[in-house]
Amino acid sequence: MNPYQTLKDRWHRLARIRETMSVLHWDQAVLMPPGAVRARGDQLATLSRIAHEISTQADTLDLITAAQDQDLGKWDRRNLELIAREWRKHCAVPESLAADLTSAATAGEFAWGQARDRDDFSLARDALQRNFDLARERAHLLSDTLGGVPYDLLMDDFEPGLTQGFVDLIFEDYAKFLPDFLNKVQKLQAADPPVMAPTGPFDVEQQAALGREIAAILGFDFDRGRLDVSRHPFCGGYRDDVRMTTRYDQADFTTALMGLIHETGHGLYENGLPMAYATQPVGQASGLAMHESQSLLMEMQASRSPAFVRFLFHQAQAKFKGAGPAWTAENMQRLYTRVQPGPIRVDADEVTYPAHVIVRYEIEKALFSGALKIADLPTAFADGLEQHLGVRPASDFQGVLQDIHWYSGGFGYFPTYSLGAMMAAQLYEAAHKALDQDESSLDQDLAQGDFSRLLSWLRCHVHQQGSITDTNGILQAATGRPLDPSIFKQHLYHRYLGGQE
Amino acid sequence: MNPYQTLKDRWHRLARIRETMSVLHWDQAVLMPPGAVRARGDQLATLSRIAHEISTQADTLDLITAAQDQDLGKWDRRNLELIAREWRKHCAVPESLAADLTSAATAGEFAWGQARDRDDFSLARDALQRNFDLARERAHLLSDTLGGVPYDLLMDDFEPGLTQGFVDLIFEDYAKFLPDFLNKVQKLQAADPPVMAPTGPFDVEQQAALGREIAAILGFDFDRGRLDVSRHPFCGGYRDDVRMTTRYDQADFTTALMGLIHETGHGLYENGLPMAYATQPVGQASGLAMHESQSLLMEMQASRSPAFVRFLFHQAQAKFKGAGPAWTAENMQRLYTRVQPGPIRVDADEVTYPAHVIVRYEIEKALFSGALKIADLPTAFADGLEQHLGVRPASDFQGVLQDIHWYSGGFGYFPTYSLGAMMAAQLYEAAHKALDQDESSLDQDLAQGDFSRLLSWLRCHVHQQGSITDTNGILQAATGRPLDPSIFKQHLYHRYLGGQE
Repeated sequence: MNPYQTLKDRWHRLARIRETMSVLHWDQAVLMPPGAVRARGDQLATLSRIAHEISTQADTLDLITAAQDQDLGKWDRRNLELIAREWRKHCAVPESLAADLTSAATAGEFAWGQARDRDDFSLARDALQRNFDLARERAHLLSDTLGGVPYDLLMDDFEPGLTQGFVDLIFEDYAKFLPDFLNKVQKLQAADPPVMAPTGPFDVEQQAALGREIAAILGFDFDRGRLDVSRHPFCGGYRDDVRMTTRYDQADFTTALMGLIHETGHGLYENGLPMAYATQPVGQASGLAMHESQSLLMEMQASRSPAFVRFLFHQAQAKFKGAGPAWTAENMQRLYTRVQPGPIRVDADEVTYPAHVIVRYEIEKALFSGALKIADLPTAFADGLEQHLGVRPASDFQGVLQDIHWYSGGFGYFPTYSLGAMMAAQLYEAAHKALDQDESSLDQDLAQGDFSRLLSWLRCHVHQQGSITDTNGILQAATGRPLDPSIFKQHLYHRYLGGQE
Repeated sequence: MNPYQTLKDRWHRLARIRETMSVLHWDQAVLMPPGAVRARGDQLATLSRIAHEISTQADTLDLITAAQDQDLGKWDRRNLELIAREWRKHCAVPESLAADLTSAATAGEFAWGQARDRDDFSLARDALQRNFDLARERAHLLSDTLGGVPYDLLMDDFEPGLTQGFVDLIFEDYAKFLPDFLNKVQKLQAADPPVMAPTGPFDVEQQAALGREIAAILGFDFDRGRLDVSRHPFCGGYRDDVRMTTRYDQADFTTALMGLIHETGHGLYENGLPMAYATQPVGQASGLAMHESQSLLMEMQASRSPAFVRFLFHQAQAKFKGAGPAWTAENMQRLYTRVQPGPIRVDADEVTYPAHVIVRYEIEKALFSGALKIADLPTAFADGLEQHLGVRPASDFQGVLQDIHWYSGGFGYFPTYSLGAMMAAQLYEAAHKALDQDESSLDQDLAQGDFSRLLSWLRCHVHQQGSITDTNGILQAATGRPLDPSIFKQHLYHRYLGGQE
C-alpha cells in the first residue's frame, strides 16, 4: 500500500470512530438511562484515547513526507494537507494532557450544572479554573510547536485559520455600529402595533408533525437523519445519520419551529458534503463558522424573509386551526423580527446576538492575556453585557453561568456564531443574485415553500466543496469575495430600517 | 504497572468497545435511519478490528505468563484464566479470516433477507456455503491450536466448555422422551374446554404501560435500562444500560407480554452481574445457556405458574377492561400452557421447543462431519422436523429459512436455548426449595406479584457469581448438582400431566 493510502486508511478509521462517538453523544442526550452515565463517559474517553493513538502513530511523519512526493489530484493533495495539520496539532499535546482535558471537561460540566441549579458561580469556579489552566497549557504547547498566538490556535480548533487580528477588526466594527442602529430599530418598532404571540396550547404531536413537514420542505432527507426531543436542542450524528433534536413548549410553537429550521440548516450541510471523501478530512465541513452559516442562512435569512414567513404562517394556521388577531402574516413577521436586548444569548435576536458573542470574546482574550482572573469573571461578564447591550444580568444564572462552553474547556468557540451569521448574509445575497432572474426569484420560490433552487445553489457552492479550501476560500469562490461583514449590516438595515445605510 | 494490571486495563478497554458496539447494534435495530446502514456496518467492523488488535497484542503471552506468578485472589486468578482463554482463541484466527467472517456475515444476513422474502433457499445458498466454509476453517484452526473437536470449539464461543458428547446425551434422551409424552399431553388437552384468546384491539400504549409495570414488578431497574420497539425482540446493551425491545400486536397482548418477561429475565441478569468486575471477563455472564436460563426462568417457570398467571390475568384485565368468557384465570392458564407442534421455533411451546433445537443441532453436526452438504439442507431440515415433531414445513420460509443464525455464521448457538430451558427448571426447583418455608412460599409471593425473594436468590446464587466458575460450576453451587435434565422433564410431567413421571 502506498503511503498516502495508508494515511487515508487510518483517517477512515478515525472518521468511523468519531461517527460512533457522535451517535453515543446523541444517545446520551436523548434517551440513555441515567444509570449509564459513568460507563458512557468511560466509553467516550476510551474511544477518544484510541483515536489519539491512531492519529499520532510513530511512523506518521514518514508517511506524510513520503506521500508529499506522490502524484496526487487536487482533492487528495488538500486531504493530505489536512491530515498533516491534524497530526501536528495532536502530536503537540501529550496523551496525559489530552486525558486531563477530557476528565476536567466532564468534571466541569457537572460543576456547571450544580452551580447553575444553585445560581452560584463559586461552586464551579475551581473546575472552571482547572479547565482554563489546561486549555492555556495546551494553547501554549500548540504555539511552541506550530508558532502563532496561543489563543488563535484554540479558535483554529473550531474554524481553521481564524486569528485574533481578523476577529478584532470585525467585532470592533460591529460594536461601534450597534448602539446607534439598535436605538433606531427600537424607536421604529415602538411605533409599530404591539406584537402578539399566538396563544396555545399547541399539541406537541402537531408541532412535531409541522416541524417534520417544514424540515422536508427545506430539503432534509429523513432517510439519512432523524428528529427527536432533547433538553438542549442540537444537531448531532454525521452526514448519513444526522440526529436533530428540538424541545417543544405547549404554550409557544414558534421557538421550537425556528430552532428546528436552524438545526435543519446544519443537517442539510451534513447531508450534502461530498460523498467520495465521506470519511476523509477534505470531505468534512470547512469549519464551525461555515456550519453555523448554513443553519443561520435557513433560520435567519430564508425563513424570516417576508415571503417565507407568509408561507410558514399559512402552514401553522392550518395545522393549529389558528384564529384571532395574532394570526396574521404581518404580526408573524413582526414577531419573528422583534429586536429586544436581553441578558440571554440563546434568546437573542439577530441584531443583538453579536454583542453577546463580543462580550465572551473580549473576556476570553483578557483571560488568555492574563488581564482577567477567573475569580473576576462574574463582574466582567455583567459589565460587558451592560457596556455592549445596556442590560445587566440579575445574577450569575443570567450571567456567567448561562453557557456551558467554558466549563467544559471550550475556549475560542463563541466567535464562530457571529462569523457564521455574517457569512450567512453574504451567501444569501449571492444566492439571491444567482437565482433572481427575469422569470423567477428566490422570494417567489420561498413564498411557495420551494427550497429546491436555493438548496441546489448551496449544494454546489458550499456543501459539495467540503474542505477543498478554507472557509474564506469557499466564500470567495461562492460570492466573489472573502468574508465581508458589511453585507450583514446591509441586511440589517434592509430588514429593520427598511432601507440602505 | 504490574503485568496483571496491564492485562486488566486492556480488557477494560475491550469491554468499553464491546458496550459501545452493543449500543450501536441496538440503535440500528430500533431507530437508525435506513440511509446509514453502510456506514454503521463499517463502524462496527472498525471497532471489531480494533478490539481484535487490542486482544492480540504481541506482548500478551509474556504478560499472561508473568501475571501467573503474581499473588492474585480468587476472582483475579479466574479473570486471568478467562483473559488467557480469550486471547488463545483470538490468536488462533488470523486477522484476514476474522475480516472475512465479518463481511461474509453481513452478506449472508442480506442474502437471507432476500431469500426469505422470495421463499427461495437457493438465493441464500452460496452466501450460506461461504459462511459455513469460513466457520469450519475457523473451527479447524481453533482445534489445531487448542485441541479438541472443531465443532465443540464453536459451541464454546457461546457456552464455554460445551461439548458434543455432553449435548448428545441430553438431546438423545429428550428425543426419546418426547413422542410418548407429547402424545399424552395432546390427548389430555384435547379433553379440556377449548382455549379462547381474548379479542382486541389492545391499545399499544396500554400494552407498553402494562409491560413496563410487569418488568418493574419482576425487579427490572429502568434507571439502568430501557424498553423500546423493534421488528425482532431482543435484549441488547449491557449491565448499566440494558436495552430490551418488544413488538406489539393490537390483536393479541399475550405474546408481547410474555416476550417482554423473557427479555426482562435477560435484563435482570445483566443488571445483577458483579459491579466490581464490571468490565472484566470474570464479571460477565458465564455463558449464553446461563443467560437463556435467566430469561426462561422468568418466562416459562415463574410467569406461567398458576400463581403468577392469576396475578397477571388481573393486571391485564384491569388494564384492558377485559370481559367475556376468555377473561378467566383458568382460560389464561390453558392459553399459556397450550402444547401444539408446529414448524416455527420461535412460536413453539416449552414441550416441543427442544425438538426444534435438536433438529438444528443434528444438522450442524452432520455439516461439520461432512455427512451433509449445504445444498441438501432444505430437505434435511424438513425431514428432521417431520421425524421429531411430525410436522413438515410447507416451504423453505417455514423451514430452513426461518432462522438467521447460520446465514450470519452462527454455528453452535442453538443448543444453548434448550440447555437454558433445562437449567431454568433446575434453578427454579432449587429456588422453590430455598424459599418454600413454614410461613411463606414462592407461589404465595408470585400470587401477590412479589418477586423480591426470588430475585434475591437469583442475585446471590447466579447473577453475582458472574463467571467465577463455568456454568456447570455455578449450577452445582446453586442447586447441589451439575446440569440434570431430569428436572426439566419432571417439571413438564408436573405442569402438563399433573403429576410425577
